[in-house]
Amino acid sequence: MGSDANSDRKQRPLGVFDSGLGGLTVVRELAACLPAEDIVYLGDTARVPYGIKSPETIRRFALEDLAFLLSFEPKLIVVACNSASAAAFEQIVDASPVDVVDVIRPGAAAAVALTDGPIGVIGTEATVASGAYPRAIAALDPRREVIARACPLLVPIVEEGRGEDDPIVLHVLCDYLRELQRRRPGALVLGCTHYPLLAGAIAKLMGPDTPLVNSGRAAALEVQRRLCSTGAANPRDAGGSMHCYTTDNPQRFARLGERFGGRAIDHVAFVGTDELETRPGPVYR
Amino acid sequence: MGSDANSDRKQRPLGVFDSGLGGLTVVRELAACLPAEDIVYLGDTARVPYGIKSPETIRRFALEDLAFLLSFEPKLIVVACNSASAAAFEQIVDASPVDVVDVIRPGAAAAVALTDGPIGVIGTEATVASGAYPRAIAALDPRREVIARACPLLVPIVEEGRGEDDPIVLHVLCDYLRELQRRRPGALVLGCTHYPLLAGAIAKLMGPDTPLVNSGRAAALEVQRRLCSTGAANPRDAGGSMHCYTTDNPQRFARLGERFGGRAIDHVAFVGTDELETRPGPVYR
Repeated sequence: MGSDANSDRKQRPLGVFDSGLGGLTVVRELAACLPAEDIVYLGDTARVPYGIKSPETIRRFALEDLAFLLSFEPKLIVVACNSASAAAFEQIVDASPVDVVDVIRPGAAAAVALTDGPIGVIGTEATVASGAYPRAIAALDPRREVIARACPLLVPIVEEGRGEDDPIVLHVLCDYLRELQRRRPGALVLGCTHYPLLAGAIAKLMGPDTPLVNSGRAAALEVQRRLCSTGAANPRDAGGSMHCYTTDNPQRFARLGERFGGRAIDHVAFVGTDELETRPGPVYR
Repeated sequence: MGSDANSDRKQRPLGVFDSGLGGLTVVRELAACLPAEDIVYLGDTARVPYGIKSPETIRRFALEDLAFLLSFEPKLIVVACNSASAAAFEQIVDASPVDVVDVIRPGAAAAVALTDGPIGVIGTEATVASGAYPRAIAALDPRREVIARACPLLVPIVEEGRGEDDPIVLHVLCDYLRELQRRRPGALVLGCTHYPLLAGAIAKLMGPDTPLVNSGRAAALEVQRRLCSTGAANPRDAGGSMHCYTTDNPQRFARLGERFGGRAIDHVAFVGTDELETRPGPVYR
Protein backbone atom coordinates (compact mmCIF):
# COMPACT_ATOMS: atom_id res chain seq x y z
CA MET A 1 0.00 0.00 0.00
CA GLY A 2 1.50 3.38 -1.02
CA SER A 3 1.85 6.18 1.52
CA ASP A 4 -1.14 8.04 0.05
CA ALA A 5 -3.33 4.96 0.27
CA ASN A 6 -2.15 4.35 3.82
CA SER A 7 -2.80 7.94 4.83
CA ASP A 8 -6.28 7.63 3.31
CA ARG A 9 -6.84 4.42 5.26
CA LYS A 10 -5.92 6.10 8.56
CA GLN A 11 -8.70 8.66 8.01
CA ARG A 12 -11.40 6.08 7.45
CA PRO A 13 -13.97 5.41 10.16
CA LEU A 14 -14.55 2.33 12.28
CA GLY A 15 -17.86 0.67 11.38
CA VAL A 16 -19.71 -0.69 14.42
CA PHE A 17 -23.04 -2.51 14.53
CA ASP A 18 -25.37 -3.99 17.09
CA SER A 19 -28.97 -5.18 17.27
CA GLY A 20 -29.85 -2.00 19.12
CA LEU A 21 -28.42 0.24 21.82
CA GLY A 22 -26.15 -2.17 23.69
CA GLY A 23 -23.26 -1.77 21.25
CA LEU A 24 -22.90 1.81 22.44
CA THR A 25 -21.18 0.41 25.55
CA VAL A 26 -18.55 -0.91 23.12
CA VAL A 27 -18.36 2.51 21.43
CA ARG A 28 -17.74 4.00 24.87
CA GLU A 29 -14.72 1.71 25.28
CA LEU A 30 -13.51 2.45 21.74
CA ALA A 31 -13.71 6.18 22.43
CA ALA A 32 -11.66 5.69 25.60
CA CYS A 33 -8.92 3.65 23.84
CA LEU A 34 -8.98 5.39 20.47
CA PRO A 35 -10.36 8.91 20.90
CA ALA A 36 -9.16 10.14 17.48
CA GLU A 37 -11.13 7.59 15.45
CA ASP A 38 -14.33 8.44 13.58
CA ILE A 39 -17.12 5.96 14.22
CA VAL A 40 -20.18 5.02 12.15
CA TYR A 41 -22.66 3.03 14.26
CA LEU A 42 -25.71 1.05 13.13
CA GLY A 43 -28.29 -0.08 15.70
CA ASP A 44 -30.96 -2.39 14.22
CA THR A 45 -33.62 -1.26 16.68
CA ALA A 46 -36.53 -2.25 14.38
CA ARG A 47 -35.55 -5.91 14.75
CA VAL A 48 -34.03 -5.82 18.24
CA PRO A 49 -33.44 -8.08 20.15
CA TYR A 50 -31.34 -10.60 18.21
CA GLY A 51 -30.72 -12.65 21.36
CA ILE A 52 -34.04 -14.55 21.23
CA LYS A 53 -33.80 -15.39 17.52
CA SER A 54 -32.45 -18.31 15.49
CA PRO A 55 -28.86 -18.42 14.15
CA GLU A 56 -30.15 -18.29 10.54
CA THR A 57 -32.16 -15.13 11.13
CA ILE A 58 -29.36 -13.46 13.11
CA ARG A 59 -26.94 -14.25 10.25
CA ARG A 60 -29.21 -12.68 7.66
CA PHE A 61 -29.70 -9.53 9.74
CA ALA A 62 -25.97 -9.29 10.55
CA LEU A 63 -24.94 -9.53 6.89
CA GLU A 64 -27.42 -6.77 6.03
CA ASP A 65 -25.97 -4.62 8.83
CA LEU A 66 -22.47 -5.28 7.49
CA ALA A 67 -23.41 -4.33 3.92
CA PHE A 68 -24.82 -1.04 5.17
CA LEU A 69 -21.66 -0.18 7.10
CA LEU A 70 -19.38 -1.11 4.18
CA SER A 71 -20.95 1.67 2.14
CA PHE A 72 -19.09 4.09 4.48
CA GLU A 73 -15.75 2.51 3.50
CA PRO A 74 -14.62 1.74 7.06
CA LYS A 75 -11.09 0.53 7.82
CA LEU A 76 -12.36 -2.07 10.29
CA ILE A 77 -15.71 -3.57 11.35
CA VAL A 78 -16.64 -4.15 14.99
CA VAL A 79 -19.43 -6.64 15.65
CA ALA A 80 -20.58 -5.02 18.90
CA CYS A 81 -23.30 -7.58 19.55
CA ASN A 82 -22.62 -10.85 21.31
CA SER A 83 -25.57 -12.62 19.65
CA ALA A 84 -24.35 -11.63 16.16
CA SER A 85 -20.75 -12.49 17.09
CA ALA A 86 -21.94 -15.91 18.28
CA ALA A 87 -24.13 -16.74 15.30
CA ALA A 88 -22.48 -14.98 12.38
CA PHE A 89 -18.78 -14.22 12.95
CA GLU A 90 -17.43 -16.56 10.25
CA GLN A 91 -20.01 -15.36 7.71
CA ILE A 92 -19.21 -11.72 8.48
CA VAL A 93 -15.47 -12.32 8.09
CA ASP A 94 -16.09 -14.09 4.76
CA ALA A 95 -18.25 -11.24 3.49
CA SER A 96 -16.08 -8.36 4.68
CA PRO A 97 -13.22 -6.94 2.61
CA VAL A 98 -11.82 -5.32 5.79
CA ASP A 99 -10.67 -6.65 9.15
CA VAL A 100 -13.43 -7.70 11.60
CA VAL A 101 -13.26 -7.67 15.40
CA ASP A 102 -16.08 -9.29 17.37
CA VAL A 103 -16.77 -9.20 21.10
CA ILE A 104 -16.59 -12.92 21.90
CA ARG A 105 -13.02 -13.88 20.99
CA PRO A 106 -11.42 -10.88 22.78
CA GLY A 107 -13.71 -11.44 25.80
CA ALA A 108 -12.74 -15.11 25.97
CA ALA A 109 -9.02 -14.26 25.68
CA ALA A 110 -9.24 -11.65 28.43
CA ALA A 111 -10.90 -14.17 30.75
CA VAL A 112 -8.32 -16.88 30.02
CA ALA A 113 -5.52 -14.39 30.73
CA LEU A 114 -7.13 -13.36 34.02
CA THR A 115 -7.50 -16.72 35.76
CA ASP A 116 -6.44 -20.36 35.73
CA GLY A 117 -9.77 -21.35 37.28
CA PRO A 118 -13.20 -21.96 35.76
CA ILE A 119 -14.68 -19.15 33.70
CA GLY A 120 -18.27 -18.00 34.09
CA VAL A 121 -20.20 -16.52 31.17
CA ILE A 122 -23.56 -14.76 31.22
CA GLY A 123 -25.40 -13.72 28.04
CA THR A 124 -28.61 -13.84 26.01
CA GLU A 125 -30.45 -17.04 25.13
CA ALA A 126 -28.91 -17.05 21.62
CA THR A 127 -25.34 -16.37 22.81
CA VAL A 128 -25.40 -19.08 25.46
CA ALA A 129 -27.20 -21.63 23.24
CA SER A 130 -24.58 -21.11 20.50
CA GLY A 131 -21.74 -22.34 22.71
CA ALA A 132 -19.54 -19.64 21.15
CA TYR A 133 -17.81 -18.64 24.41
CA PRO A 134 -16.93 -22.22 25.45
CA ARG A 135 -15.59 -22.79 21.90
CA ALA A 136 -13.50 -19.59 21.94
CA ILE A 137 -12.15 -20.47 25.42
CA ALA A 138 -11.41 -24.07 24.39
CA ALA A 139 -9.42 -22.77 21.39
CA LEU A 140 -7.10 -21.08 23.89
CA ASP A 141 -7.17 -23.68 26.66
CA PRO A 142 -8.94 -26.95 25.80
CA ARG A 143 -9.26 -28.12 29.42
CA ARG A 144 -10.75 -24.96 30.85
CA GLU A 145 -14.13 -25.37 32.58
CA VAL A 146 -16.83 -22.91 31.47
CA ILE A 147 -20.04 -22.25 33.40
CA ALA A 148 -22.54 -20.47 31.14
CA ARG A 149 -25.93 -19.06 32.12
CA ALA A 150 -28.54 -17.39 29.90
CA CYS A 151 -30.11 -14.31 31.51
CA PRO A 152 -32.98 -13.31 29.17
CA LEU A 153 -34.55 -10.69 31.43
CA LEU A 154 -31.46 -8.51 31.83
CA VAL A 155 -31.73 -6.80 28.42
CA PRO A 156 -35.36 -5.71 28.88
CA ILE A 157 -34.59 -4.71 32.48
CA VAL A 158 -31.78 -2.40 31.34
CA GLU A 159 -33.87 -1.03 28.46
CA GLU A 160 -36.72 -0.27 30.87
CA GLY A 161 -34.26 2.04 32.64
CA ARG A 162 -34.08 0.19 35.95
CA GLY A 163 -30.93 0.97 37.93
CA GLU A 164 -28.57 -1.28 39.84
CA ASP A 165 -30.22 -0.55 43.19
CA ASP A 166 -33.72 -1.45 41.99
CA PRO A 167 -34.99 -4.36 44.16
CA ILE A 168 -36.29 -6.19 41.07
CA VAL A 169 -32.89 -5.99 39.40
CA LEU A 170 -31.23 -7.45 42.49
CA HIS A 171 -33.87 -10.18 42.78
CA VAL A 172 -33.45 -11.20 39.12
CA LEU A 173 -29.63 -11.10 39.36
CA CYS A 174 -29.68 -13.27 42.51
CA ASP A 175 -31.84 -15.78 40.66
CA TYR A 176 -29.56 -15.94 37.60
CA LEU A 177 -26.25 -15.86 39.50
CA ARG A 178 -27.08 -18.39 42.25
CA GLU A 179 -25.30 -21.35 40.62
CA LEU A 180 -22.34 -19.16 39.55
CA GLN A 181 -21.95 -17.82 43.10
CA ARG A 182 -21.82 -21.38 44.41
CA ARG A 183 -19.19 -22.51 41.91
CA ARG A 184 -16.91 -19.46 42.34
CA PRO A 185 -15.41 -19.00 38.86
CA GLY A 186 -12.05 -17.21 38.58
CA ALA A 187 -13.61 -14.65 36.19
CA LEU A 188 -17.08 -13.82 34.90
CA VAL A 189 -17.53 -12.65 31.31
CA LEU A 190 -20.31 -10.10 30.77
CA GLY A 191 -21.28 -11.71 27.46
CA CYS A 192 -23.86 -9.11 26.44
CA THR A 193 -23.25 -5.45 25.74
CA HIS A 194 -26.13 -4.41 28.01
CA TYR A 195 -24.60 -5.96 31.11
CA PRO A 196 -21.91 -3.33 31.82
CA LEU A 197 -24.80 -1.13 33.00
CA LEU A 198 -25.37 -3.67 35.79
CA ALA A 199 -21.67 -4.35 36.48
CA GLY A 200 -21.68 -2.80 39.96
CA ALA A 201 -24.50 -5.03 41.21
CA ILE A 202 -23.06 -8.13 39.50
CA ALA A 203 -19.61 -7.48 41.00
CA LYS A 204 -21.12 -7.09 44.47
CA LEU A 205 -23.04 -10.38 44.17
CA MET A 206 -20.04 -12.31 42.81
CA GLY A 207 -17.54 -10.93 45.33
CA PRO A 208 -13.90 -9.83 44.96
CA ASP A 209 -12.55 -13.26 43.91
CA THR A 210 -14.49 -13.19 40.65
CA PRO A 211 -13.35 -10.23 38.52
CA LEU A 212 -15.69 -9.25 35.69
CA VAL A 213 -14.63 -9.19 32.03
CA ASN A 214 -16.32 -6.49 29.96
CA SER A 215 -16.32 -8.06 26.50
CA GLY A 216 -16.74 -4.63 24.90
CA ARG A 217 -13.61 -3.33 26.58
CA ALA A 218 -11.69 -6.43 25.48
CA ALA A 219 -12.88 -5.84 21.91
CA ALA A 220 -11.84 -2.17 22.00
CA LEU A 221 -8.33 -3.13 23.17
CA GLU A 222 -8.15 -5.67 20.32
CA VAL A 223 -9.14 -2.96 17.81
CA GLN A 224 -6.43 -0.70 19.22
CA ARG A 225 -3.85 -3.48 18.90
CA ARG A 226 -4.80 -4.18 15.26
CA LEU A 227 -4.82 -0.53 14.19
CA CYS A 228 -1.45 0.13 15.83
CA SER A 229 0.19 -3.00 14.46
CA THR A 230 -0.91 -2.20 10.91
CA GLY A 231 -0.21 1.53 11.13
CA ALA A 232 -3.87 2.30 10.50
CA ALA A 233 -4.62 4.36 13.64
CA ASN A 234 -5.72 7.91 13.02
CA PRO A 235 -2.78 10.15 14.05
CA ARG A 236 -4.68 13.41 14.57
CA ASP A 237 -5.04 15.11 17.95
CA ALA A 238 -8.69 16.10 17.57
CA GLY A 239 -11.47 13.87 18.88
CA GLY A 240 -13.21 11.65 16.36
CA SER A 241 -16.80 12.09 15.22
CA MET A 242 -19.66 9.67 15.82
CA HIS A 243 -22.54 9.20 13.38
CA CYS A 244 -25.33 6.82 14.35
CA TYR A 245 -27.95 5.14 12.19
CA THR A 246 -30.96 3.35 13.59
CA THR A 247 -33.67 1.28 11.89
CA ASP A 248 -36.36 2.58 14.27
CA ASN A 249 -37.14 5.62 16.34
CA PRO A 250 -34.08 7.96 16.31
CA GLN A 251 -35.52 10.00 19.22
CA ARG A 252 -35.70 6.97 21.54
CA PHE A 253 -32.23 5.96 20.34
CA ALA A 254 -30.76 9.35 21.23
CA ARG A 255 -32.54 9.46 24.59
CA LEU A 256 -31.63 5.95 25.79
CA GLY A 257 -28.32 5.88 23.94
CA GLU A 258 -26.75 8.45 26.22
CA ARG A 259 -27.04 6.00 29.14
CA PHE A 260 -25.28 3.28 27.15
CA GLY A 261 -22.64 5.38 25.45
CA GLY A 262 -21.89 7.66 28.38
CA ARG A 263 -22.17 10.82 26.29
CA ALA A 264 -24.78 12.75 24.32
CA ILE A 265 -25.63 11.38 20.89
CA ASP A 266 -25.63 14.30 18.46
CA HIS A 267 -25.95 12.69 15.06
CA VAL A 268 -28.57 9.99 14.65
CA ALA A 269 -30.41 9.24 11.42
CA PHE A 270 -33.06 6.74 10.37
CA VAL A 271 -32.46 3.93 7.86
CA GLY A 272 -35.32 1.51 7.15
CA THR A 273 -34.89 -2.26 7.33
CA ASP A 274 -36.47 -2.41 3.87
CA GLU A 275 -33.52 -0.32 2.68
CA LEU A 276 -31.06 -2.67 4.45
CA GLU A 277 -32.72 -5.72 2.89
CA THR A 278 -32.63 -4.38 -0.66
CA ARG A 279 -29.19 -2.76 -0.41
CA PRO A 280 -26.74 -4.29 -2.88
CA GLY A 281 -23.60 -5.95 -1.52
CA PRO A 282 -20.43 -4.13 -0.44
CA VAL A 283 -19.57 -1.01 -2.45
CA TYR A 284 -16.11 -0.84 -0.95
CA ARG A 285 -13.55 0.51 -3.37
CA MET B 1 -73.75 -12.26 -2.87
CA GLY B 2 -75.24 -15.37 -4.54
CA SER B 3 -75.73 -18.53 -2.50
CA ASP B 4 -72.66 -20.18 -4.08
CA ALA B 5 -70.50 -17.21 -3.25
CA ASN B 6 -71.87 -17.16 0.28
CA SER B 7 -71.27 -20.88 0.69
CA ASP B 8 -67.71 -20.33 -0.54
CA ARG B 9 -67.27 -17.49 1.93
CA LYS B 10 -68.36 -19.67 4.86
CA GLN B 11 -65.56 -22.12 4.05
CA ARG B 12 -62.82 -19.52 4.05
CA PRO B 13 -60.41 -19.31 6.96
CA LEU B 14 -59.95 -16.62 9.57
CA GLY B 15 -56.61 -14.84 9.14
CA VAL B 16 -54.92 -14.01 12.44
CA PHE B 17 -51.61 -12.25 13.01
CA ASP B 18 -49.43 -11.20 15.90
CA SER B 19 -45.85 -10.06 16.46
CA GLY B 20 -45.05 -13.51 17.82
CA LEU B 21 -46.61 -16.13 20.05
CA GLY B 22 -48.98 -14.03 22.14
CA GLY B 23 -51.75 -14.04 19.54
CA LEU B 24 -52.14 -17.76 20.12
CA THR B 25 -54.03 -16.87 23.31
CA VAL B 26 -56.54 -15.16 20.98
CA VAL B 27 -56.62 -18.26 18.77
CA ARG B 28 -57.42 -20.29 21.88
CA GLU B 29 -60.47 -18.08 22.51
CA LEU B 30 -61.48 -18.24 18.82
CA ALA B 31 -61.32 -22.02 18.93
CA ALA B 32 -63.53 -22.04 22.04
CA CYS B 33 -66.18 -19.71 20.48
CA LEU B 34 -65.95 -20.90 16.87
CA PRO B 35 -64.58 -24.46 16.81
CA ALA B 36 -65.59 -25.12 13.18
CA GLU B 37 -63.51 -22.28 11.69
CA ASP B 38 -60.21 -22.84 9.87
CA ILE B 39 -57.46 -20.51 11.05
CA VAL B 40 -54.31 -19.27 9.32
CA TYR B 41 -51.95 -17.66 11.83
CA LEU B 42 -48.85 -15.56 11.20
CA GLY B 43 -46.41 -14.84 14.06
CA ASP B 44 -43.69 -12.35 13.10
CA THR B 45 -41.14 -13.86 15.48
CA ALA B 46 -38.13 -12.53 13.52
CA ARG B 47 -39.14 -8.97 14.43
CA VAL B 48 -40.85 -9.60 17.78
CA PRO B 49 -41.53 -7.68 19.98
CA TYR B 50 -43.55 -4.87 18.37
CA GLY B 51 -44.34 -3.34 21.76
CA ILE B 52 -41.01 -1.47 22.11
CA LYS B 53 -41.06 -0.05 18.57
CA SER B 54 -42.32 3.17 16.95
CA PRO B 55 -45.85 3.51 15.48
CA GLU B 56 -44.37 3.95 11.97
CA THR B 57 -42.37 0.73 12.15
CA ILE B 58 -45.26 -1.23 13.69
CA ARG B 59 -47.53 0.03 10.87
CA ARG B 60 -45.12 -1.13 8.20
CA PHE B 61 -44.74 -4.58 9.76
CA ALA B 62 -48.50 -4.92 10.32
CA LEU B 63 -49.33 -4.09 6.69
CA GLU B 64 -46.81 -6.70 5.54
CA ASP B 65 -48.39 -9.25 7.88
CA LEU B 66 -51.82 -8.37 6.49
CA ALA B 67 -50.69 -8.74 2.86
CA PHE B 68 -49.34 -12.20 3.64
CA LEU B 69 -52.59 -13.35 5.25
CA LEU B 70 -54.71 -11.95 2.41
CA SER B 71 -53.03 -14.37 0.03
CA PHE B 72 -55.00 -17.12 1.84
CA GLU B 73 -58.29 -15.38 0.97
CA PRO B 74 -59.60 -15.19 4.54
CA LYS B 75 -63.17 -14.10 5.29
CA LEU B 76 -62.05 -11.94 8.20
CA ILE B 77 -58.77 -10.65 9.67
CA VAL B 78 -58.03 -10.67 13.40
CA VAL B 79 -55.28 -8.32 14.60
CA ALA B 80 -54.30 -10.45 17.59
CA CYS B 81 -51.64 -8.03 18.79
CA ASN B 82 -52.42 -5.08 21.01
CA SER B 83 -49.38 -3.09 19.82
CA ALA B 84 -50.42 -3.49 16.15
CA SER B 85 -54.07 -2.77 17.01
CA ALA B 86 -52.96 0.40 18.81
CA ALA B 87 -50.60 1.69 16.11
CA ALA B 88 -52.10 0.43 12.86
CA PHE B 89 -55.82 -0.41 13.11
CA GLU B 90 -57.03 2.35 10.74
CA GLN B 91 -54.32 1.55 8.19
CA ILE B 92 -55.14 -2.17 8.32
CA VAL B 93 -58.86 -1.50 7.84
CA ASP B 94 -58.07 0.80 4.88
CA ALA B 95 -55.82 -1.83 3.28
CA SER B 96 -58.05 -4.85 3.88
CA PRO B 97 -60.80 -5.91 1.46
CA VAL B 98 -62.37 -8.00 4.25
CA ASP B 99 -63.68 -7.22 7.73
CA VAL B 100 -61.06 -6.60 10.46
CA VAL B 101 -61.43 -7.23 14.20
CA ASP B 102 -58.75 -5.95 16.53
CA VAL B 103 -58.24 -6.64 20.24
CA ILE B 104 -58.47 -3.11 21.61
CA ARG B 105 -61.99 -1.99 20.68
CA PRO B 106 -63.67 -5.23 21.88
CA GLY B 107 -61.55 -5.18 25.06
CA ALA B 108 -62.54 -1.57 25.76
CA ALA B 109 -66.23 -2.33 25.15
CA ALA B 110 -66.14 -5.35 27.45
CA ALA B 111 -64.64 -3.25 30.26
CA VAL B 112 -67.17 -0.43 29.83
CA ALA B 113 -70.00 -2.99 29.99
CA LEU B 114 -68.55 -4.54 33.13
CA THR B 115 -68.29 -1.51 35.41
CA ASP B 116 -69.35 2.11 35.90
CA GLY B 117 -66.12 2.82 37.76
CA PRO B 118 -62.61 3.63 36.55
CA ILE B 119 -61.02 1.17 34.14
CA GLY B 120 -57.45 -0.05 34.53
CA VAL B 121 -55.36 -1.05 31.51
CA ILE B 122 -52.00 -2.81 31.45
CA GLY B 123 -50.01 -3.35 28.26
CA THR B 124 -46.70 -2.90 26.44
CA GLU B 125 -44.82 0.38 26.17
CA ALA B 126 -46.20 0.97 22.63
CA THR B 127 -49.81 0.12 23.51
CA VAL B 128 -49.88 2.37 26.57
CA ALA B 129 -47.99 5.23 24.87
CA SER B 130 -50.44 5.16 21.95
CA GLY B 131 -53.40 6.04 24.17
CA ALA B 132 -55.50 3.64 22.09
CA TYR B 133 -57.40 2.14 25.06
CA PRO B 134 -58.35 5.52 26.60
CA ARG B 135 -59.51 6.65 23.13
CA ALA B 136 -61.58 3.50 22.56
CA ILE B 137 -63.11 3.80 26.04
CA ALA B 138 -63.82 7.55 25.56
CA ALA B 139 -65.63 6.74 22.31
CA LEU B 140 -68.08 4.68 24.38
CA ASP B 141 -68.16 6.81 27.54
CA PRO B 142 -66.35 10.17 27.30
CA ARG B 143 -66.21 10.74 31.08
CA ARG B 144 -64.79 7.38 32.05
CA GLU B 145 -61.54 7.49 34.02
CA VAL B 146 -58.77 5.24 32.66
CA ILE B 147 -55.66 4.24 34.62
CA ALA B 148 -53.04 2.84 32.24
CA ARG B 149 -49.70 1.26 33.15
CA ALA B 150 -46.98 -0.04 30.84
CA CYS B 151 -45.48 -3.36 32.01
CA PRO B 152 -42.49 -3.96 29.68
CA LEU B 153 -41.04 -6.93 31.58
CA LEU B 154 -44.13 -9.13 31.46
CA VAL B 155 -43.68 -10.27 27.84
CA PRO B 156 -40.07 -11.44 28.29
CA ILE B 157 -41.02 -12.99 31.64
CA VAL B 158 -43.76 -15.08 30.01
CA GLU B 159 -41.51 -15.98 27.06
CA GLU B 160 -38.80 -17.13 29.47
CA GLY B 161 -41.34 -19.68 30.72
CA ARG B 162 -41.71 -18.39 34.26
CA GLY B 163 -44.95 -19.45 35.90
CA GLU B 164 -47.40 -17.53 38.05
CA ASP B 165 -45.94 -18.78 41.32
CA ASP B 166 -42.38 -17.72 40.46
CA PRO B 167 -41.23 -15.22 43.12
CA ILE B 168 -39.77 -12.93 40.44
CA VAL B 169 -43.09 -12.84 38.58
CA LEU B 170 -44.91 -11.89 41.78
CA HIS B 171 -42.29 -9.25 42.64
CA VAL B 172 -42.53 -7.65 39.17
CA LEU B 173 -46.35 -7.76 39.19
CA CYS B 174 -46.48 -6.13 42.65
CA ASP B 175 -44.23 -3.37 41.34
CA TYR B 176 -46.35 -2.71 38.25
CA LEU B 177 -49.75 -3.07 39.93
CA ARG B 178 -49.08 -1.02 43.09
CA GLU B 179 -50.78 2.16 41.88
CA LEU B 180 -53.67 0.20 40.32
CA GLN B 181 -54.23 -1.69 43.57
CA ARG B 182 -54.45 1.62 45.44
CA ARG B 183 -56.95 3.14 43.00
CA ARG B 184 -59.23 0.07 42.83
CA PRO B 185 -60.55 0.20 39.24
CA GLY B 186 -63.88 -1.50 38.50
CA ALA B 187 -62.21 -3.66 35.83
CA LEU B 188 -58.66 -4.28 34.60
CA VAL B 189 -58.03 -4.88 30.90
CA LEU B 190 -55.22 -7.33 30.08
CA GLY B 191 -54.08 -5.22 27.13
CA CYS B 192 -51.45 -7.62 25.85
CA THR B 193 -52.01 -11.13 24.54
CA HIS B 194 -49.24 -12.53 26.77
CA TYR B 195 -50.94 -11.49 29.98
CA PRO B 196 -53.66 -14.19 30.13
CA LEU B 197 -50.81 -16.56 31.09
CA LEU B 198 -50.41 -14.50 34.27
CA ALA B 199 -54.14 -13.93 34.87
CA GLY B 200 -54.30 -16.01 38.05
CA ALA B 201 -51.56 -14.03 39.79
CA ILE B 202 -52.91 -10.69 38.54
CA ALA B 203 -56.44 -11.55 39.73
CA LYS B 204 -55.10 -12.51 43.16
CA LEU B 205 -53.18 -9.22 43.49
CA MET B 206 -56.11 -7.07 42.30
CA GLY B 207 -58.75 -8.81 44.44
CA PRO B 208 -62.35 -9.82 43.70
CA ASP B 209 -63.66 -6.27 43.15
CA THR B 210 -61.55 -5.83 40.01
CA PRO B 211 -62.57 -8.40 37.39
CA LEU B 212 -60.09 -8.91 34.56
CA VAL B 213 -60.94 -8.38 30.90
CA ASN B 214 -59.15 -10.73 28.51
CA SER B 215 -58.97 -8.61 25.35
CA GLY B 216 -58.47 -11.75 23.24
CA ARG B 217 -61.68 -13.31 24.54
CA ALA B 218 -63.55 -10.06 23.86
CA ALA B 219 -62.15 -10.06 20.30
CA ALA B 220 -63.19 -13.69 19.75
CA LEU B 221 -66.75 -12.91 20.86
CA GLU B 222 -66.79 -9.95 18.46
CA VAL B 223 -65.65 -12.23 15.61
CA GLN B 224 -68.43 -14.67 16.48
CA ARG B 225 -71.01 -11.87 16.47
CA ARG B 226 -69.86 -10.60 13.05
CA LEU B 227 -69.78 -14.03 11.41
CA CYS B 228 -73.22 -14.91 12.75
CA SER B 229 -74.81 -11.58 11.80
CA THR B 230 -73.51 -11.82 8.22
CA GLY B 231 -74.22 -15.54 7.83
CA ALA B 232 -70.52 -16.24 7.29
CA ALA B 233 -69.94 -18.75 10.07
CA ASN B 234 -68.78 -22.18 8.96
CA PRO B 235 -71.76 -24.51 9.46
CA ARG B 236 -69.90 -27.84 9.56
CA ASP B 237 -69.71 -30.04 12.64
CA ALA B 238 -66.05 -31.00 12.30
CA GLY B 239 -63.35 -29.04 14.10
CA GLY B 240 -61.48 -26.45 12.04
CA SER B 241 -57.83 -26.72 11.04
CA MET B 242 -55.01 -24.44 12.15
CA HIS B 243 -52.01 -23.60 9.99
CA CYS B 244 -49.27 -21.44 11.46
CA TYR B 245 -46.55 -19.44 9.75
CA THR B 246 -43.63 -17.90 11.57
CA THR B 247 -40.84 -15.61 10.37
CA ASP B 248 -38.27 -17.29 12.62
CA ASN B 249 -37.59 -20.63 14.25
CA PRO B 250 -40.63 -22.90 13.67
CA GLN B 251 -39.33 -25.39 16.30
CA ARG B 252 -39.30 -22.78 19.07
CA PHE B 253 -42.71 -21.56 17.86
CA ALA B 254 -44.21 -25.05 18.12
CA ARG B 255 -42.59 -25.71 21.52
CA LEU B 256 -43.59 -22.42 23.22
CA GLY B 257 -46.81 -22.04 21.22
CA GLU B 258 -48.48 -24.94 22.98
CA ARG B 259 -48.36 -22.99 26.26
CA PHE B 260 -50.00 -19.97 24.65
CA GLY B 261 -52.56 -21.76 22.50
CA GLY B 262 -53.45 -24.47 24.99
CA ARG B 263 -53.04 -27.26 22.45
CA ALA B 264 -50.34 -28.87 20.33
CA ILE B 265 -49.31 -26.97 17.20
CA ASP B 266 -49.17 -29.46 14.35
CA HIS B 267 -48.67 -27.33 11.26
CA VAL B 268 -46.04 -24.62 11.43
CA ALA B 269 -44.05 -23.36 8.47
CA PHE B 270 -41.35 -20.74 7.96
CA VAL B 271 -41.82 -17.58 5.91
CA GLY B 272 -38.94 -15.07 5.74
CA THR B 273 -39.39 -11.38 6.49
CA ASP B 274 -37.64 -10.68 3.19
CA GLU B 275 -40.52 -12.55 1.54
CA LEU B 276 -43.05 -10.49 3.52
CA GLU B 277 -41.33 -7.24 2.58
CA THR B 278 -41.22 -7.98 -1.13
CA ARG B 279 -44.67 -9.60 -1.35
CA PRO B 280 -46.96 -7.68 -3.65
CA GLY B 281 -50.14 -6.19 -2.21
CA PRO B 282 -53.35 -8.12 -1.57
CA VAL B 283 -54.05 -10.88 -4.10
CA TYR B 284 -57.61 -11.29 -2.88
CA ARG B 285 -59.99 -12.25 -5.66
